[in-house]
Amino acid sequence: MIIVLKKDATQAEIDHVVEKIKATGLAVHISKGKERTIIGAIGDEALLTQVPLETIAGVESVMPIMKPYTLVSREFRKEATVVEVCGVKMGEAALQVIAGPCSVESMASLIETAKQVKASGARILRGGAFKPRTSPYDFQGLGLEGLKYLAEAKKVTGLPIISELMDPRDTELLCEYVDIIQIGARNMQNFRLLTEAGKTKKPVLLKRGLSATFKEFLMSAEYIAAQGNDNIILCERGIRTFETATRNTLDLSAVPVLKEETHLPVFVDPSHAVGRWALVAPLALAAVAVGADGLMIEVHIDPENALCDGAQSLKPKKFDLLMKDIKRVAAAVGRGV
Amino acid sequence: MIIVLKKDATQAEIDHVVEKIKATGLAVHISKGKERTIIGAIGDEALLTQVPLETIAGVESVMPIMKPYTLVSREFRKEATVVEVCGVKMGEAALQVIAGPCSVESMASLIETAKQVKASGARILRGGAFKPRTSPYDFQGLGLEGLKYLAEAKKVTGLPIISELMDPRDTELLCEYVDIIQIGARNMQNFRLLTEAGKTKKPVLLKRGLSATFKEFLMSAEYIAAQGNDNIILCERGIRTFETATRNTLDLSAVPVLKEETHLPVFVDPSHAVGRWALVAPLALAAVAVGADGLMIEVHIDPENALCDGAQSLKPKKFDLLMKDIKRVAAAVGRGV
Amino acid sequence: MIIVLKKDATQAEIDHVVEKIKATGLAVHISKGKERTIIGAIGDEALLTQVPLETIAGVESVMPIMKPYTLVSREFRKEATVVEVCGVKMGEAALQVIAGPCSVESMASLIETAKQVKASGARILRGGAFKPRTSPYDFQGLGLEGLKYLAEAKKVTGLPIISELMDPRDTELLCEYVDIIQIGARNMQNFRLLTEAGKTKKPVLLKRGLSATFKEFLMSAEYIAAQGNDNIILCERGIRTFETATRNTLDLSAVPVLKEETHLPVFVDPSHAVGRWALVAPLALAAVAVGADGLMIEVHIDPENALCDGAQSLKPKKFDLLMKDIKRVAAAVGRGV
Amino acid sequence: MIIVLKKDATQAEIDHVVEKIKATGLAVHISKGKERTIIGAIGDEALLTQVPLETIAGVESVMPIMKPYTLVSREFRKEATVVEVCGVKMGEAALQVIAGPCSVESMASLIETAKQVKASGARILRGGAFKPRTSPYDFQGLGLEGLKYLAEAKKVTGLPIISELMDPRDTELLCEYVDIIQIGARNMQNFRLLTEAGKTKKPVLLKRGLSATFKEFLMSAEYIAAQGNDNIILCERGIRTFETATRNTLDLSAVPVLKEETHLPVFVDPSHAVGRWALVAPLALAAVAVGADGLMIEVHIDPENALCDGAQSLKPKKFDLLMKDIKRVAAAVGRGV
Repeated sequence: MIIVLKKDATQAEIDHVVEKIKATGLAVHISKGKERTIIGAIGDEALLTQVPLETIAGVESVMPIMKPYTLVSREFRKEATVVEVCGVKMGEAALQVIAGPCSVESMASLIETAKQVKASGARILRGGAFKPRTSPYDFQGLGLEGLKYLAEAKKVTGLPIISELMDPRDTELLCEYVDIIQIGARNMQNFRLLTEAGKTKKPVLLKRGLSATFKEFLMSAEYIAAQGNDNIILCERGIRTFETATRNTLDLSAVPVLKEETHLPVFVDPSHAVGRWALVAPLALAAVAVGADGLMIEVHIDPENALCDGAQSLKPKKFDLLMKDIKRVAAAVGRGV
Repeated sequence: MIIVLKKDATQAEIDHVVEKIKATGLAVHISKGKERTIIGAIGDEALLTQVPLETIAGVESVMPIMKPYTLVSREFRKEATVVEVCGVKMGEAALQVIAGPCSVESMASLIETAKQVKASGARILRGGAFKPRTSPYDFQGLGLEGLKYLAEAKKVTGLPIISELMDPRDTELLCEYVDIIQIGARNMQNFRLLTEAGKTKKPVLLKRGLSATFKEFLMSAEYIAAQGNDNIILCERGIRTFETATRNTLDLSAVPVLKEETHLPVFVDPSHAVGRWALVAPLALAAVAVGADGLMIEVHIDPENALCDGAQSLKPKKFDLLMKDIKRVAAAVGRGV
Repeated sequence: MIIVLKKDATQAEIDHVVEKIKATGLAVHISKGKERTIIGAIGDEALLTQVPLETIAGVESVMPIMKPYTLVSREFRKEATVVEVCGVKMGEAALQVIAGPCSVESMASLIETAKQVKASGARILRGGAFKPRTSPYDFQGLGLEGLKYLAEAKKVTGLPIISELMDPRDTELLCEYVDIIQIGARNMQNFRLLTEAGKTKKPVLLKRGLSATFKEFLMSAEYIAAQGNDNIILCERGIRTFETATRNTLDLSAVPVLKEETHLPVFVDPSHAVGRWALVAPLALAAVAVGADGLMIEVHIDPENALCDGAQSLKPKKFDLLMKDIKRVAAAVGRGV
Repeated sequence: MIIVLKKDATQAEIDHVVEKIKATGLAVHISKGKERTIIGAIGDEALLTQVPLETIAGVESVMPIMKPYTLVSREFRKEATVVEVCGVKMGEAALQVIAGPCSVESMASLIETAKQVKASGARILRGGAFKPRTSPYDFQGLGLEGLKYLAEAKKVTGLPIISELMDPRDTELLCEYVDIIQIGARNMQNFRLLTEAGKTKKPVLLKRGLSATFKEFLMSAEYIAAQGNDNIILCERGIRTFETATRNTLDLSAVPVLKEETHLPVFVDPSHAVGRWALVAPLALAAVAVGADGLMIEVHIDPENALCDGAQSLKPKKFDLLMKDIKRVAAAVGRGV
């Protein structure tokens, strides 16, 4: 931690800061320049993060040196984490594609979709049973019924299942049916939910919040890891910006930045980011080219009649074409699918 | 709902859209211009919101005419809602000030703070027992112990209590101790939590999410109202923008915009918005001038040793001076405190 | 400047960084911690800002200690700068209000507006002769004709004139007619224009860019000051955020933050920020309460027929009422108008 | 144009709106629903854009149906525009890569860079002679001297030249030396500069402003086109968001969205977007995969000693490797380089 003092900081103020730092057990190094006195706090910075040094008279700014996350950091573990579920490995050279409808709507349509996305090369089936909706009057998901359909689709196709957890009270129930727990963007800082997901030890796909920095995103992953669960998949799904032509702005720099910072696999969900099916394919290919470990794509056999997010869902035929392109681009960047 | 068709939409495409609209029971009005055909769907627009018309070939854009919220809208109820708790009325001409520490830390400090903020004119005591923290390694609040201290502070000072609900499983417990349930910014779209808060029928102070539009903010309030609970106080607390000199950007236009759109009282929390105590006072005065129905301000008897958000907390003496200024500005805009 | 090295930086890398710093004439201080080696560069930091230390192998991050602006900083000059034009002082206890139409449209309407805003208490007349418009097909201003009308309005009312400079080639012409040069938000980083405005030595009102940080805003002011012109008035006018209910988001924290950082007067333009006249009055009062040195408000005698920004213009009668409120709030915070 | 009236709009108010519309020569269609009266204005919408209908009592909102740009729109011209300069075609199946240093620094280094980027496959040379810099104290470019070096580099390598225009007064001079005029992000709404660039009839590469929507971006292109110059190349280069880990956020959805809306070629500049060389390569590949017509990449033979933007410049060797990858990804999406 570097503490920069104001130009006119008094000796008493400087002494007070030094005393506060020493009280935490850290060593202090003072550097008096012509313009500013600067104090370096040497040792385990975490001990200082809860001391509000900025409130002390004479302090101009406080600059942390260390990253606030540990377990999920690349420094903590150099080699990439591979998350495995039912034989599907995420984080290796081969990309994995998760596909399926936004929400589970009926047994027949789910199984039909599952068969088709499997045939095209998807290895994991998505489908929401509990749906977070902006409006209380919109379809909120089939709940337990939806989970049962997912289990059936798994039985039929062999595809492992991912579905969203919205409420800590549903954790046990959800875990009976799904292979990967999804934490949605709106719950990225629902810290109780993160803790519950961490306790399950199940793989967790954590979506980036709409206005979450990479640092905050990784701190939320750290919540899960702090429970002893490092089966975490990060998923970029678009951030909120001033641009309204797309639902959100897909931030593909997330992929290389996160791969530098963390050992966890990084996926991309282009469907939610752009909100329009015609834009999903080009952005999915871009995600592959930028180095994503996997994709999450919404596919619906009849988007016009979808109960949720029809506008951004691909029909199975378009998804099949996309998968062929994905394979070509993946090969061009030295990865399989 | 207005549906704008593409320039080259075919008659078959137009017919298909018309058919989809009619299937919901709405009437259709078609207007063929030189450049575009436009379809108006006449009747209860809510019936159409779940039909993904944008997915239909030939459709260029879909423009809703109606607001997606009902119960909380000014149209639904012209007169201002007054939320009353223990005799304190929010939403009338007199402003109300909520004050207290970010988190409850000890019985003694809480009671001391409560006495002082009461003496300065605050009418409600705030204090977090359950704390949402970005890092899993930061102080997470005293939990039940903190609630007991709050209850004691109420007994001693008579100030009603507000504290944050983070987890649906804590609802019952929290309600035993607090008079107003706070929903934090990070949980503004935690729809299950909103539903639980709605069910309690207790007053709920709902903070605007960091990247929530006014429309989304009101939709979240609608979740609470849809449970039959219209004791809702909205609270602007800063949004996330590109500017990093302040913790968030306090959006004071929220006050007049929301007062147009809704009958609910609108509060402002300058402390969390700016993150630095020296900026709290001027922005608190601005909030009064812009027409806020109340303020929420962090006060700590010893910010240097606060376990949470010390940097943005006012000392009781500074808070006392601020309250005097608040009264003057309130009077200037025709309101009491 | 603090240079943080990567955990695994080699001694050769460290030596190379040290050598680069010493080559600029700065002294070096090395601190080897358990986790990181940190290098402090001691002396005139400006010498280092053009050395891309981040590119050097082994460097993790570079943290400047000093502010990048000098002449406009509060450190450089403690006392507030007072900009005076035709006897009107900006930056003293008394607030100043600039009012007038968005664009100059006709001699008669301008003079009528000037008379009315003067009667209500405005001390400076605004009016655009050259108009930056998003569309090439919109009204672009009357040009020289407009400047002549402004000069006439000044002759009749005695109000000094402010008008926008859009093109370095217009500088001389504009300066013949106006008392204050306005640099618009879209030109905040038009560095050639800033330099020209600086050379004139005329007072310059510089608007904050739509996505400019406070630091960038002050750097643009530094461009003007670097030409020997410190007659600069800063003007917050709303930033671009995700919220679309208002034209921009008025960032009133700009006022106290800028007043800490700089000695220059800080004005607020609520009209452009919100884009709707009904919101102008409450935000104008908030700007006064937060400590602005002045306001810039659009007034039009017939907004329905305005050629530009009619939606956000107040009628003279509403402006008159607002001025009365402004006086009351100003008095409440210890300032005159 | 659709005009939505307030629920309680009076007949007189409705009549007044109708009258205003009819005065522009447009036809009116009124639709009275249960909840709202809606007025459709039928005919050339541009006639209405300058009438501030929102100011009229009783009007709730005004929704344009038509796009505000014409000449640059895909509707105006279905087939893609191909911009050709010295035999290099932009907008065809083959991608074009522009490369070179941020700023021209010396004859020798420029020519060396030009030779190397040409050998790797770049077809156009970039280099700033006039540099827009945030700080007045930073290197501002070599000016005319720099232009001469560029001309010499062209003579030696045959690569056409692109360089930035910052000031209308430099237009003629710049055009003597360069083949493509660059308009930088900070000048995207410098409307006078756009007009000058339009008048030259030279190809113009227009960068997206840091906070410009696609609509505003296209309106700025329309300024150029309105002067009779449709040799315009659009260039996405990152927008400003809350994320600070990258210099800006590269918005790759810009490519498919703009290709829908306009017939102009769309390039991507990953270097300025991310600001760190290690991130440039993956984002360049993503830009190719998403469908960009070309790339603009900063290359410097000695980034450590660059006078400008060294941190984001690739060394020629890294650029050469990148070009190989670009060719592979381009082939995977059916394009050459």
